[in-house]
Amino acid sequence: MGEFELLALLRERLPDAGPQVRLGSGDDAAVTVPGGAVATSVDALVEGVHFRRETASLRQIGRKAMSAALSDLAAMGAAPGEAYVWLGAPEAMDEAELLELGEGLAAVATETGTTIAGGDLTRAPVLSLAVTVTGHAPNADDFVTRGGARPGDALVVSGELGGAAAGLLLLEDPSLAGDDALRARQLDPTPRFAAGQALAAAGATAMIDLSDGLAGDAAHIATASQALLVVDADALPLAPGVAALAAASGRDPLELAAAGGEDYELLAALPPAALGPAQKALAALGTPLTAIGRVEAAAGRPRAELRRRGGEAVPIRGFDQLRPRRPR
Amino acid sequence: MGEFELLALLRERLPDAGPQVRLGSGDDAAVTVPGGAVATSVDALVEGVHFRRETASLRQIGRKAMSAALSDLAAMGAAPGEAYVWLGAPEAMDEAELLELGEGLAAVATETGTTIAGGDLTRAPVLSLAVTVTGHAPNADDFVTRGGARPGDALVVSGELGGAAAGLLLLEDPSLAGDDALRARQLDPTPRFAAGQALAAAGATAMIDLSDGLAGDAAHIATASQALLVVDADALPLAPGVAALAAASGRDPLELAAAGGEDYELLAALPPAALGPAQKALAALGTPLTAIGRVEAAAGRPRAELRRRGGEAVPIRGFDQLRPRRPR
Repeated sequence: MGEFELLALLRERLPDAGPQVRLGSGDDAAVTVPGGAVATSVDALVEGVHFRRETASLRQIGRKAMSAALSDLAAMGAAPGEAYVWLGAPEAMDEAELLELGEGLAAVATETGTTIAGGDLTRAPVLSLAVTVTGHAPNADDFVTRGGARPGDALVVSGELGGAAAGLLLLEDPSLAGDDALRARQLDPTPRFAAGQALAAAGATAMIDLSDGLAGDAAHIATASQALLVVDADALPLAPGVAALAAASGRDPLELAAAGGEDYELLAALPPAALGPAQKALAALGTPLTAIGRVEAAAGRPRAELRRRGGEAVPIRGFDQLRPRRPR
Repeated sequence: MGEFELLALLRERLPDAGPQVRLGSGDDAAVTVPGGAVATSVDALVEGVHFRRETASLRQIGRKAMSAALSDLAAMGAAPGEAYVWLGAPEAMDEAELLELGEGLAAVATETGTTIAGGDLTRAPVLSLAVTVTGHAPNADDFVTRGGARPGDALVVSGELGGAAAGLLLLEDPSLAGDDALRARQLDPTPRFAAGQALAAAGATAMIDLSDGLAGDAAHIATASQALLVVDADALPLAPGVAALAAASGRDPLELAAAGGEDYELLAALPPAALGPAQKALAALGTPLTAIGRVEAAAGRPRAELRRRGGEAVPIRGFDQLRPRRPR
């Protein structure tokens, strides 16, 4: 089968095009009429770097590539739009395998209301996917960036943390016991579109998805907003099973929750008055929303800190650690 | 240097953002307000598949990745817009090398008026680039697809053919003598934005850029338009030096011009009355436009044929070859 026949078969598996799409895959370019503002992001998964074929099926790899890319749009408060996929396939992959991968991509597209409007298929030494995604909003100001957090804002996080890191431990070490739900958090994250749009509507001043991990992603908001983010270590909502797995593997559960990454939950800053309405809106979606800290003025360098409720810093990779002042 | 510092350095090398861009690289997503119709395409270059580091500098690889992607937009008659770049870099590449690559990408962006509005940088086993590009037009109908060619239309091609294939021969076999201009046709193609927009304005009914080669790309128009494309082998405008190199290397110059690919010229179908005005418009841009054939009704399967002026078929890979009918 040639590239063009395979692309045609993949196209048959795609969901119907959304209203903004005037011409889908198969010409020199897709044609859309957005009618408002567009958020665009690109994200890539490479075999041996982001996943291993031994621990993930091709369908799962396709699903995760699409979900991870879409998560960036959810973090803007965008409505889902279109996706454009480059697939780099090693010569040894056959058509059935490529179609399984394509079905994973298409399944998440269908579930989220995303149109796969274009793509490119080439050879590559290892399986590689680059997914460019577009999301929509009536106006550019409707999108929530990383840069608007203000002193006094509450920090909130959707869902639960640490599940993806715990799932990775389970996948990499079969001798560990743990729930399949944790493995699913690693292999099959959910882009939080509805939660992101609800947080944007509630007045979120800054938002990011947790791909690098809470520590690093909080630092991104701190830097973009020129603020100090203080995260309460005692408030972090651990995913079920994370504490037990941390104990069994000799790890700090906070390490999994704050430095592990790939939970693809949303971290947002909200004016205090917006906290209640936002929690109510997310509860209606079935998504927990937990207050985990506050935004303060950055006296010095913008940064994110993790502290116990008593005030002492928690030494988790990625967070700024408060050091005791030495007498001169 | 970490990913984020390197991305910051790359951002410094980017041209100023175009008027549609409200938020560029550095947040979860870029934000644009297109104000009309958008054409989007993705194109990838992978080391060992599409280029070799031995015959192309990093700057040239960056330039070609951007130009090849943009060429698809030129073939829609689009005005240049934004680019989103995924860069997969092997661990051995240092910052200076990545910046050289970035400068190549940014140079073509600047020359064409494209904003590099976002990107992603990850590890990969070999140097890989996936470039998603967007172009603009007031209305979706302003874009020229592959599917509108009608019987009676003239076939035209911009510029000259065979240069890129000849350049590849020169790069791969240093014992061959040939002009650096041919090597440049292979390493540094030019996306034909102005020509594409002029052809669209002149009334082109179908258009494609010559990436696979005239034979294959004419077949794409034939299939999408459900037509027969008859290309006149004696009319093809050979790039200077192609005939001599073909003779020196024992090849048919038509093979280089029609099957070689990567010339990134435009092949378009035009109603006969539009031919003169289109040639005048392209002459004003300094770009030759040559009539190379005609569109006919597809009596059987839609296809493209290459024929001598006398009518006999020319056996070039990719074209349908007319076979003598056998008596039953």
